[in-house]
Amino acid sequence: MTDRMVTRELAQWISGLSGSDIPGEVRSEGVRTFVNWLGCALGGADHPSMDAALRALSPFSGPRSSTVLGRTDTLDPMNAALLNGISSHVLDYDDTHLKTIIHPAGPVASALLALAELRPMSGEDFLTALIAGVEVECRIGNSVYPAHYDRGWHITGTAGVFGAAAACGQAMGLDAQRQTWALGLAGTQSSGLREAFGTMTKSYHPGVAAMNGLRSALLAEAGFDSAEQGIEGRRGWAAILSDAFDETEILGGLGERWEAALNSYKPFACGIVIHPTIDGCQQIRAEIGDRVNDIAKVELRTHPLVLELTGKRAPRTGLEAKFSVFHSAACALLRGDGAPTAFTDEVVNLPEILDLRGRVEAITDPDMHEASVNITLTFNDGTTLEKYVDRAIGSRDRPLSDAHLEQKFLTQAGLVVGEDVAKAALDAAWGIERADPASVARATVPVSSAAAE
Amino acid sequence: MTDRMVTRELAQWISGLSGSDIPGEVRSEGVRTFVNWLGCALGGADHPSMDAALRALSPFSGPRSSTVLGRTDTLDPMNAALLNGISSHVLDYDDTHLKTIIHPAGPVASALLALAELRPMSGEDFLTALIAGVEVECRIGNSVYPAHYDRGWHITGTAGVFGAAAACGQAMGLDAQRQTWALGLAGTQSSGLREAFGTMTKSYHPGVAAMNGLRSALLAEAGFDSAEQGIEGRRGWAAILSDAFDETEILGGLGERWEAALNSYKPFACGIVIHPTIDGCQQIRAEIGDRVNDIAKVELRTHPLVLELTGKRAPRTGLEAKFSVFHSAACALLRGDGAPTAFTDEVVNLPEILDLRGRVEAITDPDMHEASVNITLTFNDGTTLEKYVDRAIGSRDRPLSDAHLEQKFLTQAGLVVGEDVAKAALDAAWGIERADPASVARATVPVSSAAAE
Repeated sequence: MTDRMVTRELAQWISGLSGSDIPGEVRSEGVRTFVNWLGCALGGADHPSMDAALRALSPFSGPRSSTVLGRTDTLDPMNAALLNGISSHVLDYDDTHLKTIIHPAGPVASALLALAELRPMSGEDFLTALIAGVEVECRIGNSVYPAHYDRGWHITGTAGVFGAAAACGQAMGLDAQRQTWALGLAGTQSSGLREAFGTMTKSYHPGVAAMNGLRSALLAEAGFDSAEQGIEGRRGWAAILSDAFDETEILGGLGERWEAALNSYKPFACGIVIHPTIDGCQQIRAEIGDRVNDIAKVELRTHPLVLELTGKRAPRTGLEAKFSVFHSAACALLRGDGAPTAFTDEVVNLPEILDLRGRVEAITDPDMHEASVNITLTFNDGTTLEKYVDRAIGSRDRPLSDAHLEQKFLTQAGLVVGEDVAKAALDAAWGIERADPASVARATVPVSSAAAE
Repeated sequence: MTDRMVTRELAQWISGLSGSDIPGEVRSEGVRTFVNWLGCALGGADHPSMDAALRALSPFSGPRSSTVLGRTDTLDPMNAALLNGISSHVLDYDDTHLKTIIHPAGPVASALLALAELRPMSGEDFLTALIAGVEVECRIGNSVYPAHYDRGWHITGTAGVFGAAAACGQAMGLDAQRQTWALGLAGTQSSGLREAFGTMTKSYHPGVAAMNGLRSALLAEAGFDSAEQGIEGRRGWAAILSDAFDETEILGGLGERWEAALNSYKPFACGIVIHPTIDGCQQIRAEIGDRVNDIAKVELRTHPLVLELTGKRAPRTGLEAKFSVFHSAACALLRGDGAPTAFTDEVVNLPEILDLRGRVEAITDPDMHEASVNITLTFNDGTTLEKYVDRAIGSRDRPLSDAHLEQKFLTQAGLVVGEDVAKAALDAAWGIERADPASVARATVPVSSAAAE
């Protein structure tokens, strides 16, 4: 498919990277990526999927070096990476690399922080490795997007495992040969089917990508060898998992233009393609006040992907509702809410939500951009109101401010670990570049256990 | 793709299966499958890939309930499943479901025996679960073969993870709902790229399939949910990992015709497509005696797949030589050997082997069957000799006898654990149906540690 040794060139870049190679604004975005990820991991820490996974796997944990963020549990680094990958994604509230719809931090940060608790590293080195991992993950995603995603792969899992292996390998100081093997091992474990969307297994994908990426780096370090051309080879990752592949997306301008600087953060706790709709409905609510009770009909004009991903007409649970643009529109109009509180089993089944949800219609239009929506309201008196959202809040054109990130962090984390721990964890996260990463992980543990330590 | 609930129907069959549903001859073949697998795991137990994997992963093991077969190491069941999956495949000497080239026992037996050491079960129930796992794995393989394999997937890994989840779920008594989730979790972790062939990572595939299949069953048991149509869904396993899918291969005649009864066992320690060539060369050697030193040229006529999979012209290591029909022909002619001893770094680089290897040529012929070969020898005096092998020893038409299986077991296991332990392990393996499976695992531990217990 290509004459270049893509995997090896990428591995050479990873192993040769040092912190000073990364521009200040990229490092700053890396800190925001970390802060947002940690808040999401805390927000999801008490989810039933976490309880189930811990029930199943904690009895098999090795030495408990690493923190299950926002809980009193500790696990070996592989299992901690898995659990933190689950919690950080389970509310569908995490970061997004918009070009590929990859949620970059889940696989990468979950693996790297679990490793950092085992093998001490400086916050500066941690951030360098985190950015390397996100960069590798997003570039590999770019090289096969959209063909790979269209085939049905959950790209956060499939590309994420490379990011986790790259970040861990970078932090461990793997040489280029061993990093090549680590990427080969990652590629051969790349997985995640979109069929699992709407179940606990969706969040398992970034978790298992973190676990497998970390294991890949550890195996390669010990001399367990793998393919030399794991990504670009004739029977390699790109050829098998995608019907199209552009290697220049991986190697072009490496170290010059930074995909890691293009990360974005969700203001709403659901699938990213619903965000323009919630944003528009919130704006409408602010404009029309009590008239939300006079709505006869809501018409959404969206890109077809919106309905493909989030077209659930009649969600019964909070988790299903994250994949319902219909619920999301109704809830944003009636309650102004797009936070995790909008996606509880209770809210999903409120009579007034059900009533309005039944009057939301969606029309697909391939000429609409995926990040845009046109909303037309018809009131009971026959009058109409139209709202066009070109790019939603949280997109690259309208990024979340640091203050908004803090509010998002404190709101979701506070519900789970309490206000004080949330505040302490937030402060620790902002200071990651000057801190011991392990201390940041420990700052997330709820008070009840901190006392017991 | 289909209107039937394939995953659920399969899960119902697995959870409803009892030992008496399985005909005696299928159970007998199941015992042979187990014996052959255990011998291979012992033969591969001291391979460098095992040392590397243990160096990397043993420090992270949970409570060490399960045996690394043929070694003094113990690990938690997930890691033991991984390691035993590696050792049983690393010599390329294991079993083969010929229709799909799946090596069935590696993923299934490795997961199930590690589980059986944690949760006691009768040998009878063990055998039932083993056969269920192999059946599920081979049927799922059939449903996508050859399109799936042709795409580049290592089908032993990709189908194997279903087999491991089915076997473990069956043994754990999962109900149909939980078994459905276990299959969904398995499918979303299905992986393994053929690009890794010729490296340690090839053997990692059955190992990680065993580990992931076992983890899938444990998660499902704890209520971690997954897709309802993991196999047949629109974004499910078959649609994403294969360009063709026939559900009737999975559900047709389930419980009536048995793929598990069609397992075969390699007489030679290398890729199955080389076997006709080794068989033919051994026959020639027996016929011509000393004239093997007068060979001017060897010409092989084979199906194209033989060269695609095993076309390495100049292997440098024993591992690479397993993928060289050229080395294998030379070694079988000069030394009569196709056992693990034919694939050592030393033998691969013997001057007389290198010399004859350089005079072996291969011509591909799409009209040849994959399991056949035509060998033409030209001697220094210009005379020629032709040998056609229709089906190699070890194929379904010429199956290995129990006595040959024993000899294979004792030869390879004896080299690693010594003659006495090999003999005891073999006896234990034949008696699996009336034994505590955990005692069979412990019977493989080399003497030095048995004393230390």
